[in-house]
Amino acid sequence: MKDNLSSDEGTDIKHPKKKYEKVVRVPPEGYDSSNDFFEDVFMDKEMIWMGQNTNHLHGDVIADAMASCAKDKEYCKYPPPEGFSELKQLILDDLGFENLDVLLTAGATESLYLCMQSLLGPEDNVILSDPGYLIIGNFANRFAGEVRYVPIYNEECGYKLTPDLLRENMDENTKMVILIDPLNPLGSGYSEEEIKEFAEIAIENDIYLLDDITYKDFARDHYLAANYAPEHTLTIYSFSKIFGMAGIRIGAVISTPDIVDVLKNAVVNDLGVNILAQHGAIAGLKSKDEWENEIKEITSHNQKLIKEVVDKIDGVFLPVYPSDANMMAIDLSGANINPKDMSNYLLKRKIFTREGEYTSNLFGDKYLRISFSIPTEQIEVFCEEFPKAVEALRK
Amino acid sequence: MKDNLSSDEGTDIKHPKKKYEKVVRVPPEGYDSSNDFFEDVFMDKEMIWMGQNTNHLHGDVIADAMASCAKDKEYCKYPPPEGFSELKQLILDDLGFENLDVLLTAGATESLYLCMQSLLGPEDNVILSDPGYLIIGNFANRFAGEVRYVPIYNEECGYKLTPDLLRENMDENTKMVILIDPLNPLGSGYSEEEIKEFAEIAIENDIYLLDDITYKDFARDHYLAANYAPEHTLTIYSFSKIFGMAGIRIGAVISTPDIVDVLKNAVVNDLGVNILAQHGAIAGLKSKDEWENEIKEITSHNQKLIKEVVDKIDGVFLPVYPSDANMMAIDLSGANINPKDMSNYLLKRKIFTREGEYTSNLFGDKYLRISFSIPTEQIEVFCEEFPKAVEALRK
Repeated sequence: MKDNLSSDEGTDIKHPKKKYEKVVRVPPEGYDSSNDFFEDVFMDKEMIWMGQNTNHLHGDVIADAMASCAKDKEYCKYPPPEGFSELKQLILDDLGFENLDVLLTAGATESLYLCMQSLLGPEDNVILSDPGYLIIGNFANRFAGEVRYVPIYNEECGYKLTPDLLRENMDENTKMVILIDPLNPLGSGYSEEEIKEFAEIAIENDIYLLDDITYKDFARDHYLAANYAPEHTLTIYSFSKIFGMAGIRIGAVISTPDIVDVLKNAVVNDLGVNILAQHGAIAGLKSKDEWENEIKEITSHNQKLIKEVVDKIDGVFLPVYPSDANMMAIDLSGANINPKDMSNYLLKRKIFTREGEYTSNLFGDKYLRISFSIPTEQIEVFCEEFPKAVEALRK
Repeated sequence: MKDNLSSDEGTDIKHPKKKYEKVVRVPPEGYDSSNDFFEDVFMDKEMIWMGQNTNHLHGDVIADAMASCAKDKEYCKYPPPEGFSELKQLILDDLGFENLDVLLTAGATESLYLCMQSLLGPEDNVILSDPGYLIIGNFANRFAGEVRYVPIYNEECGYKLTPDLLRENMDENTKMVILIDPLNPLGSGYSEEEIKEFAEIAIENDIYLLDDITYKDFARDHYLAANYAPEHTLTIYSFSKIFGMAGIRIGAVISTPDIVDVLKNAVVNDLGVNILAQHGAIAGLKSKDEWENEIKEITSHNQKLIKEVVDKIDGVFLPVYPSDANMMAIDLSGANINPKDMSNYLLKRKIFTREGEYTSNLFGDKYLRISFSIPTEQIEVFCEEFPKAVEALRK
């Protein structure tokens, strides 16, 4: 049991030690703001969507559930503030958890925020890999004294934060380690032994394991940290990827009732989570067995097509293959190509991808991130355009 | 211009001075948790919904827009992070604002939270009326040194926070005054002269006016503080009431670009607001002229029916009539009835109402709050049951 928890008396508000960092919003070329850029890309129906790890392979089950819930107009009422118990139970069943509690939020992002806000203070440090999902680091940085970004972009560590790297980088002020499993942007995943070892370190040192399992359902195998260190783990659950509900903004954090109680005291949206989103999530969880394999087969086939193309081009390579997520990085450094030039080039050909700096401060100049949970015909367009792009941009 | 704003350099994180208050969750009679209670009430299709100021009078325009957006499956993409510009412009048009900026959030609740989190610190105090919407006070209390609840449950002040009461209760550390206009739970609203006077006080003393206009469209007349003190006003905008979208969780805060920039630096949901919600909101704003008057006529007629019944009963009265919102308080103190007993009694007859303690720490034992934006047939059921309830519970 985390010894600083005092949910019976309320939660210590941690004293942030510094200013919110000014969020730099450099608009892409030709745009007044980032938001204008995203809106333009969003509105373009011909755009091939490989830039946000979203999933475009769904049938109608979830859409129909939300549409029918809209037509019922039950949404004129507030949902129960902590969510529908059916949905919470389905999430626990999906993970095989017992004796843990679920807090639903408007997106997994909000769950991440609540964890950082409730559990970190200026005396604490947090360990996160680089590359990694930088939003988590930004949230941690608002409340913790230090976020230690551990460089993992190399073969020796398998392109992921390892238990050894954690030990090397932690000290007595380490309060939380962030596992993203599988890892955005590289697609590296953890073995059962590695997860067990992280769990042991967490228990031994009384630190939190934040286990972000957003991409777990794309993985060949996946192991949940909460099965090995339940009282030290915060499991972050997303409906944005395998369920294809990114624009619906629903997610959850799962932990012990004691820890979830602490998070509840800091809750932001205390009138609950969008009812249509909850109904979509329920429909998604109930039907997952019917569509999950087909989606995994398509993404697996899609990444094979990309691998074949990339292997034929000099100076580019896939750091991690196969990816255990629905995205991968393509290293362009051997061809001396700036990833931003590549993403701009592809965008002009209606292919939306992401330059590395979105997921790495240290290695962002080396790779392009692409997601491949889109129809195979669209992947074929990418496979045709990408080699031409490399030849056009190669220095 | 608020002189503590420093959006170019980032925002000072205020140092909360104390623990989060433990949220007390006393479950209603016969329930293990409040959430179980709300879920039960939610699931009961026969329940008459007078307990949450929600609006059950809508046709199909908004529902259809959300259903059709679900069917399009555009939601598998992330929305632009700061929202659709069409929606932001429609909100500004609805208010007649120019040169102000909009931040969309997952419910107006989140807007309230962001204002408190970004702008208040432990040296500050905040002025809020009692009765009032207590969630705002709870958020303010997490970050400000003190929330000064000004008792306004009396005829002298017109059952609302007045400019004179503000002057009496403020000091050099007052950083924000919260106007809820019209006021939840009483339905009292402000005249143009009063809003002007608040604006003058805000400018003179460099304090924020948080102008929560959630119920504005039910009012006979309404005046926006931002028209008189644009650089000191945070306007809180909700889609939960006149638009009937409570369970959809979408709202906004409108202020100067400088102030909104400061709020953005503290943003929680940086992957944007639910796409279906945004499409519903767009459809609602575009069609408002077509349905607004009918809804106002029904609510106006409904509250007249309630007034007639209440006037005939000894020992009960309406502190504010007509209400400028879609809810009112019924004072039960002259009949020696505990409002909690009344809400329990009515709940057994499938009428969901709210005891006063939900919106007042000081006067919660005096009144029942009921909302009346429901079909008139249901109001007639209430009008039949309420006099019987008073006779059954009178001491």
